Amino acid sequence: MPDASRPTFGDLQIEMAHGAGGSASRRLLEGLLVPLLSNPALNALGDSAILDVNGQRLAFTCDSFVVKPLTFPGGSIGRLAVHGTLNDLLVSGALPVALLASFILEAGFPGEALRRHVEALAEAARGAGVPVVGGDTKVVENGKGDGLYITTSGIGIVRPGLRLGPDQVRPGDRVLLSGPFGDHGITILLARGEVDLEADLESDSRPLTPLVSALLEAVPEVRWMRDPTRGGLASALNELSQQSSLAVILEEKALPVRAPVRGACELLGLDPLQIANEGQFLAVVPPQQAELALDALRGAPGGEEAAMIGEIRESPAGLVIAETDYGGSRIVDMLIGDPLPRIC
Amino acid sequence: MPDASRPTFGDLQIEMAHGAGGSASRRLLEGLLVPLLSNPALNALGDSAILDVNGQRLAFTCDSFVVKPLTFPGGSIGRLAVHGTLNDLLVSGALPVALLASFILEAGFPGEALRRHVEALAEAARGAGVPVVGGDTKVVENGKGDGLYITTSGIGIVRPGLRLGPDQVRPGDRVLLSGPFGDHGITILLARGEVDLEADLESDSRPLTPLVSALLEAVPEVRWMRDPTRGGLASALNELSQQSSLAVILEEKALPVRAPVRGACELLGLDPLQIANEGQFLAVVPPQQAELALDALRGAPGGEEAAMIGEIRESPAGLVIAETDYGGSRIVDMLIGDPLPRIC
Repeated sequence: MPDASRPTFGDLQIEMAHGAGGSASRRLLEGLLVPLLSNPALNALGDSAILDVNGQRLAFTCDSFVVKPLTFPGGSIGRLAVHGTLNDLLVSGALPVALLASFILEAGFPGEALRRHVEALAEAARGAGVPVVGGDTKVVENGKGDGLYITTSGIGIVRPGLRLGPDQVRPGDRVLLSGPFGDHGITILLARGEVDLEADLESDSRPLTPLVSALLEAVPEVRWMRDPTRGGLASALNELSQQSSLAVILEEKALPVRAPVRGACELLGLDPLQIANEGQFLAVVPPQQAELALDALRGAPGGEEAAMIGEIRESPAGLVIAETDYGGSRIVDMLIGDPLPRIC
Repeated sequence: MPDASRPTFGDLQIEMAHGAGGSASRRLLEGLLVPLLSNPALNALGDSAILDVNGQRLAFTCDSFVVKPLTFPGGSIGRLAVHGTLNDLLVSGALPVALLASFILEAGFPGEALRRHVEALAEAARGAGVPVVGGDTKVVENGKGDGLYITTSGIGIVRPGLRLGPDQVRPGDRVLLSGPFGDHGITILLARGEVDLEADLESDSRPLTPLVSALLEAVPEVRWMRDPTRGGLASALNELSQQSSLAVILEEKALPVRAPVRGACELLGLDPLQIANEGQFLAVVPPQQAELALDALRGAPGGEEAAMIGEIRESPAGLVIAETDYGGSRIVDMLIGDPLPRIC
């Protein structure tokens, strides 16, 4: 069935925006890749593909990491590569089983730097209790890379009985967020030194294991989860509103944003809702379980600042709306263009 | 237990040779990555990691592709990315279930070229009957990539009862090869136009599905399989001889090499045994089943030129030896350095 809302890809060339997780990324994904590769698991467009393997539901996902700089406050490319893929499995409702890591190295990259990045990756994997069971290494000529790119893949076992997806979401459901947002993107921006700003801020890169486990144990009826990485909360929630044909209504004053993130965004004309995160997740839960879910998140280590940030309504279908204290409201758009390239 | 034969990685910087599949790659893998990430599935160093997931044996593998040029006689990066990962699953004794594809794009890469490469990837996956169920796209600045790098990951179900590995190999076993070798590496070299040579040759990039199936159905007692990609037959067989502590004795005149590959190698001072392949595999079988295995391969589409190329002996343990017609012999070494960078 042709889908009138599906974007088409006719772009003359690849721009940085195609990697930003906003509207250009969506055009590349839904206008080119999905139509050409079409199959049910892909078309679901989840954080992981869900496969039935001899009666067992497995989650399968991969991500490439091209973050610049390679090391930044609170993390590095190796940590990010582990946490990013683990978190995609976790928010798909899966218990991670194993990871793979594939390295594209630029000739001339220092051996000691590589050792440090692999150590960080190994430590992150050990910390999350998931082994890196294989991988690959390729080398490109000096000038054809940027030191180090890492692609990680992961498989996990989907928790039995769990059904997550935009089709599970109902009007009245509540939207929860695991903690303050925007830290990762702004940290990378500042670490690059291109903006004359300093802030006491670090990346939120972390495994979501304890938070997701606490939530699912308290409230197995969770409807939908997603980690709002590239494109931020705005992209993740716009995808939810469009895929569910429902409205996501955010309560502006409930949104947890740290002062340095808010300050940097105001100065630079950015919307914190469009800034990337690497250690937070969104969850939609039935209204009756919302308080229980929030308590579970807040009681888990690292979830102390979790918040209930909004609810699902029938209309305006397909939109994300932020409501202010004063009765005002604004449409929260997907990211257009790419103000913050290569944040993951 | 410390292993005196394990190489150590103290290299000052990454060189092209670290990506060539020879001795420098081995030093990077076994001297740095394996010690830091150590776990049983990784340490087995197979073409895929073999995992026990709730009593089911799964194969899990990934490869990054940085081939240059992106299109060449007989293939392109998209085809290669599908076949390479599929073949790693197949020679691990697995039936492929699904693939993922992650793209690192350079800003400025033409949209139409991307479409062609994704079409080739989609067609290769359809041709092999395996869906691409997910992936990722990242964009790096112009000058920080080389158009397009693709990383594919795959999972498969290991055939029940199959036990493959260097520890299964016994003196007296025979070594089979699915067809002529060296085509892929020499094709890429010529396609790059850096050598003033022409030849009627194309890459052997193809899925090994029909060949591996035919072999395993005829001879379920197969001991070991591997696709000799980077580093060629020499690297694959040296790994076998070292991991099994046995000798691999090749019969020089039984080695199937096409005339253009032999000619190019003679002119350029290369050993065809060290040249990469993307559509061939090696198998070790018990001596009693060797003829049956060879017949099975030759009877399968694309296996007409399969050959029995050698046998396993007790000594000289850890070495690969090529014996000539005239009673002479030479040690076949792993590739040192990288005469043919970025062939996959």
